[in-house]
Amino acid sequence: MMKPVDLTHASRLVNHGPTVLVTSVHGARRNVMAAAWSMPVEFTPPRIAVVIDKRTFTCELVLASGAFGICIPGASLADLTWTVGSESGRELAQEGTDKLARHGIAFEPGPVLGQPLVQGAIAWLECRRIPEPHSEQAYDTFFGEVVSAFADERVFSAGRWLLDAFDEGSNADLHTLHHLGSGNFAVASRVLRAKLLK
Amino acid sequence: MMKPVDLTHASRLVNHGPTVLVTSVHGARRNVMAAAWSMPVEFTPPRIAVVIDKRTFTCELVLASGAFGICIPGASLADLTWTVGSESGRELAQEGTDKLARHGIAFEPGPVLGQPLVQGAIAWLECRRIPEPHSEQAYDTFFGEVVSAFADERVFSAGRWLLDAFDEGSNADLHTLHHLGSGNFAVASRVLRAKLLK
Repeated sequence: MMKPVDLTHASRLVNHGPTVLVTSVHGARRNVMAAAWSMPVEFTPPRIAVVIDKRTFTCELVLASGAFGICIPGASLADLTWTVGSESGRELAQEGTDKLARHGIAFEPGPVLGQPLVQGAIAWLECRRIPEPHSEQAYDTFFGEVVSAFADERVFSAGRWLLDAFDEGSNADLHTLHHLGSGNFAVASRVLRAKLLK
Repeated sequence: MMKPVDLTHASRLVNHGPTVLVTSVHGARRNVMAAAWSMPVEFTPPRIAVVIDKRTFTCELVLASGAFGICIPGASLADLTWTVGSESGRELAQEGTDKLARHGIAFEPGPVLGQPLVQGAIAWLECRRIPEPHSEQAYDTFFGEVVSAFADERVFSAGRWLLDAFDEGSNADLHTLHHLGSGNFAVASRVLRAKLLK
């Protein structure tokens, strides 16, 4: 069900501000965290910014590998998203495990950068870190260039999100999550088509 | 209905990725644009990042004044949001007008920085630009410190969004917009409370 997304459409995947999972791997070490703070910064080449606290295990792995994955969870992954956003990957590493193993999260390596792509997520982006030490240090803000993108064709096709009205129920579990705080997520489930005012 | 928001809660206003209006003023010149690309970068002091294309009139005014406003539109402002995101403030300025006048947008000056705060929006933030010429030039990414924040108590109170189920109808017009592209907005209208997995 995951289909390649043309890189010219990659920004659309995060344009509406979904909470994402940031994955990382370096050698045998790997991690997944939740991030509410990300945004596109450029259409072409597709570039994004994401806030990764410099104290996190994810930050350590991203600096070591020069890459990260962005996996977009649908509503059905709300509990998993909140959980991996609440645990410390570094603490688990010290116990000889990681969040992926602990929660039985299936994933596959991305085709370009080998970043962990979480099964059950509705979209994936592999990103190559663009080194910006000042922004990383001052604002925990990492810039990355998107080098591969995929989406579940049931909810994103031909460069567009397909968010069916949730009361019709057809793909409500695939709608994106938007973290309000404290484990409460708004779901992007109602779509309005705006018109231009004169 | 607009009540001050404690600055320690300011990041919550944009945590879930709403599309925002960026306002700006310098002398007699003023503008408002739509921006889907913004995010918090720090809780305390409250700081945000927003992408402002360097070719825009907004960019010119922000560089001149050192400040900008962020106004969060609710669902009832979808047409206005799409409209001010589709027009050129510079072209209107050359005609001796601006988007606020053209569309009869009522606003008031912010209490700290005098930024235009749009009436009918559900939240306001005044931001002082943190000069970062490299990020601004390379990624159109402006960093700002939030120095005042307000929200409509019908939809944000005590540091929390109150997004009632839209089928109950009580505040559906105040739910945030999330731009999918081409004038289609998802509305954050369904709220899930996640639980931690063992």
